[in-house]
Parts: sequence; C-alpha cells; structure tokens
Amino acid sequence: MSNAGQLRFRAGISDEPMPLSNQRDFVAALPVSSEIVERAMDRLLPVNGDPEVRLVEAMRYAALGGGKRLRAFFVLASSTLFSVAQIPAARVAAAAEFVHAYSLIHDDLPAMDDDDLRRGQPSCHKKFDEATAILAGDALQALAFEVLAHPDTHGDPAVRVQLVTALAQAIGPRGMVGGQMLDMIAEQRSLSIDETTRLQRMKTGALIAFSCSAGAILGKASDAARLSLSAYAHDVGLAFQIADDLLDVEGTAEGLGKTPGKDAAQGKATFVSLLGLERARDQASRLADQAALHLESFGPRGDLLKQAARFVVDRRV
Amino acid sequence: MSNAGQLRFRAGISDEPMPLSNQRDFVAALPVSSEIVERAMDRLLPVNGDPEVRLVEAMRYAALGGGKRLRAFFVLASSTLFSVAQIPAARVAAAAEFVHAYSLIHDDLPAMDDDDLRRGQPSCHKKFDEATAILAGDALQALAFEVLAHPDTHGDPAVRVQLVTALAQAIGPRGMVGGQMLDMIAEQRSLSIDETTRLQRMKTGALIAFSCSAGAILGKASDAARLSLSAYAHDVGLAFQIADDLLDVEGTAEGLGKTPGKDAAQGKATFVSLLGLERARDQASRLADQAALHLESFGPRGDLLKQAARFVVDRRV
Repeated sequence: MSNAGQLRFRAGISDEPMPLSNQRDFVAALPVSSEIVERAMDRLLPVNGDPEVRLVEAMRYAALGGGKRLRAFFVLASSTLFSVAQIPAARVAAAAEFVHAYSLIHDDLPAMDDDDLRRGQPSCHKKFDEATAILAGDALQALAFEVLAHPDTHGDPAVRVQLVTALAQAIGPRGMVGGQMLDMIAEQRSLSIDETTRLQRMKTGALIAFSCSAGAILGKASDAARLSLSAYAHDVGLAFQIADDLLDVEGTAEGLGKTPGKDAAQGKATFVSLLGLERARDQASRLADQAALHLESFGPRGDLLKQAARFVVDRRV
Repeated sequence: MSNAGQLRFRAGISDEPMPLSNQRDFVAALPVSSEIVERAMDRLLPVNGDPEVRLVEAMRYAALGGGKRLRAFFVLASSTLFSVAQIPAARVAAAAEFVHAYSLIHDDLPAMDDDDLRRGQPSCHKKFDEATAILAGDALQALAFEVLAHPDTHGDPAVRVQLVTALAQAIGPRGMVGGQMLDMIAEQRSLSIDETTRLQRMKTGALIAFSCSAGAILGKASDAARLSLSAYAHDVGLAFQIADDLLDVEGTAEGLGKTPGKDAAQGKATFVSLLGLERARDQASRLADQAALHLESFGPRGDLLKQAARFVVDRRV
C-alpha cells in the first residue's frame, strides 16, 4: 500500500549522475537541488483519495510549502563528492526534508513556540488544526524512515540501515528533539554560551550533520572523507544557527516568512543576546571559513559546499 | 552517544532461547514476557544526567509506566515459533512498546483525546507539560527505529531494514497515524461499520500486526508462515479493538486506569454503538476463534498465541 518505493517508476528520472555534479556555482545549484528534492518529495508523499485525506493534505501542505531546502542541498552536494546517482540522493534528501518539515510543524504548535506563520503562510495547525498538525508531523517522521529503508534508496541493506541509524540518532533525544527540549527549558532559565552551543548543535546541527554525511554513507566513502564532512557539518550547523539568531533580530516578517523577534520576546538565550550583534556576526563568518577548510582534500569538487557555508552566514532569509 | 546498543553489554542476558519458549500457558507467560521487555526498555531508554533531563524523564515515565505489554508479548511469542534468541526478540518488543507509548502520549494530548489519566496515573502532559509530552512522543518514535536498525537486533542488515520498513508502514499515514486521524474525524461525523473497521485496522491493528509478524521477520520464516501470522494478527487486532470498545462502555476508571465512557461522550462511532453490546461481544469472540484457526499449522507451539487471542476478548482491563 505504501508509495515510498514508487519514485523510480513514476519519476522517469534516469540513474545518471545528477545535474548538480556539473554545477560549480552555489547560487545556480541551489534551485536545481530544490527542484530535484521537491519532485522526489511530491512523489514519495501519500496522495489523496482516502477518508484520512485531511492528514495527507496536512503532510503535503507542510512538506511542500517551500523553504530553502538547505538540508536537501547538503545531501545532494555531499552525494556528488562520491558520484552517487540521482535517485538514491534525491530519496535521502527527501527524507531529510520530511524530518525538517515534521520538526517545524511540531515546533510551531501552541504548546511549543506558538508560531502562526511559517514560510509566509499559516503554520500547519493554523491552516488545519492542532490534532491534524501533531499527526502530520508524526506521519512525516515515519515516512522518512520508510523512504530510507526502501531498496530504491540503495541496493545494499547495510547502507540503508546505516542511514536509518544516522537519522534516528540525529533526531532523537541526543539530537534534534533533545535540542528542542533544551530550547523550551531556555524560556524558563538563561543558558550559558556553552549550553546554548550544545542546544544548537543538537537542535539544528544534528540534522544538518546527517545531511552532510548522507552522501558519504551512500557513496561508501573512506573514514577520512567522512571525518572531513562531519567536521564541515559541525561548523556549518553552528554558523547556520548564529545566522538564524541574527536574522531573528535583523529580519522582517516579510523577508523571513515567520515572525521575527520571537526569541527575545520568549526570553530565549541566543548567540546574539549572549555575544552581541557584532561578535555573533564575526563568529558565524569565522565558522564558515573554518568549515570550508575541512573540504580542502576534495579539491574543486568541494566548491559547492564551500560556497554553501558562506551562503549560510550571508543569507538574508 | 546513543545507548541503543548497550542492551547486550549491560543486560547480562545470554543469547539462549528465551524463557517464553518453555511456556504453554498464556496466563503464566504474559508476566514473563512483560518482565523481559521492561528490562530491555529500561536499558534502551536514555538515562538522566543531561540538561534535557526533563525529556528523558518523560520518555521513561510514559514508556515504563506499566501496561499489559501485549504488543511485546506478540513479538516474543511469535519469535518463539521460529526459535529466535532472546536479545533480538526483546529489542524488537521494546521498539513496539516504545511506539505504543509514543502513540498514547500523543493521543492523550488536549488537542487529541484530551485524557488526564493513563494506566491509573496522570497522563504524560499532565505529569509534565504539553511541550514535553509532544517531544517525548517524538523521541520515542525515533528511538524505536534506532533500536531496530542496530546490529544487536539481527546480524543481517537485510532483516533489520525489513523490520524498519514493516514498522514505518505500520505506523505511518496508511497505518496507526492515519487511523488516529480517522478517529479524530469520527468526532465530527458518524462512520459506517466499514469505515470503523478500517479505522481500527489502521489505528490499533497495524501495530499489532507488526508485532505478530516481527518473529517471522527475525526468524526468516517461510512466506506461508508469514501469511498465517498476518491472518492471525488481522483477526486479533480487530478483536482487541472491539473488546476495547466494550470495556469503554462496561469498565470503570479504577479497573481501566483511564477514563471510561469517553468514546460515547466524544460522539465517536465504536463497534458497540454500531452493533450493540451483544453483537459486538459475539463478533469479538468469533474473531478470536478465527484467529486461532490460522495457527493450526504451528501445532502445539502456537498454543500461547491462541490463548492470547482468547485473552484479548475476555480481558477486563
């Protein structure tokens, strides 16, 4: 009954190396990457036609409602380093974006960050209702694991269980969900810079690290290559979060597609509140440079990911 | 960082066939099975000591707070049919109970069934708060997949991805979560008997079917054996739900450990409201007999599961 395996048959995507491998320019590559993953997501998501249509609609609304698709980009770009074909990479990218979408749905709930806007649209529980939003998030998590475990993701089951393990650890109590718990606690008491760093490495960094490592897992890369990518992901993830904190202070609702200034309003410790604007900006920039250095061993093939690190800190949305 | 793999090392459980394989009496076997799975769950759950201690506490509170452990029993009993060793079976049983615990946490939320009592104790969001409950459920789902994908669950990665796939499908939009969505919709409009059957097959039946099939997957059973078990699970799952509906009408809060009469109060279509008490009772009993018939090919080794089918409809809690 599941349609998680139908990408290959319905997509008409060949098993050729993906278009991204010809790209050397991040600004041109990002929309290519977005298109690849959104096509994959569209085909992997359940389709309407059942009484529980409301759930399917909410899953599709939240997952296909835009976004930078940075996690997908990290999966696809890291996959090009190891000549991984398009279908496996697109499926893993879709799984990462499903998890990201689920985490946003649950984070936006009234009991959590209570946010009415997401990507310039009503957040899932505003568009539907709270129960539907909770269930859509739950279902997107299950779908992500189903996609990873399916034979179309990789012919070798050992690779597929590695992906499942890496994702489960990245988004469990020691990863994304644990980080979100710390974030809720941070509304009640102020965190130190070390605690804030740990929070962000878990809340945002762990899924970004999974996305950057996914190409290495799919491509059965050497331990050395995996270590380089994981060091890159470590720095990029933190840089990303500092940039997010800066945008929360400097951005507008129109540009962000979400409500700015919420962190301060909720009394949350951010890198900006802890370091001040200027030092936070410097720190993000330094991390982007440091991230790029970890990719030296890949030569020019690492250019896209190097540019991505710079984009992450310079972005205005 | 994860402790999902530590069962083998911390448990001191040998790789001998499990105690359950000597049991022929369901009433004696159920507590043995509960003890095995609760020991496994205790060791697989994260332990306190981090700032996000609240999340860990909520996960442990919800997962270790008692219950019949019927899903664990189905995993362990089906595993004995194929001489599966104790550690793999206990790990998969723990994964099934983690998912069950997660589904109860989310079902009890104010936006869902809004239940303050679970197993005679405050439900998770009453004991902690809504945000913590949402996150604890999310983390338990991730933990279940992490446990299944770990090498200690089975030496063959192909078996582990089969388990991941089977669980993901059982609890996704075409399974448990889809069923819960239908259940929410049922508060707004009345469902037919066919729709109610479909709802329950998804909401409760799919995870029970996974639990009954798990032993066959772990034991690399023949297609014929898998089909027998899946037919058994199909009937037992529905019988279980009809019995649940009967208990909702006939039970007391003290006996049930949850609030009785909620389904009727919420205007939900149940088998009792659709069929009446007597016909519902007959139907459950007929399904239990039918379930047992599917196990004939296993001979006396199928006795435990046959008795379980009877217990499911005769239980008073």
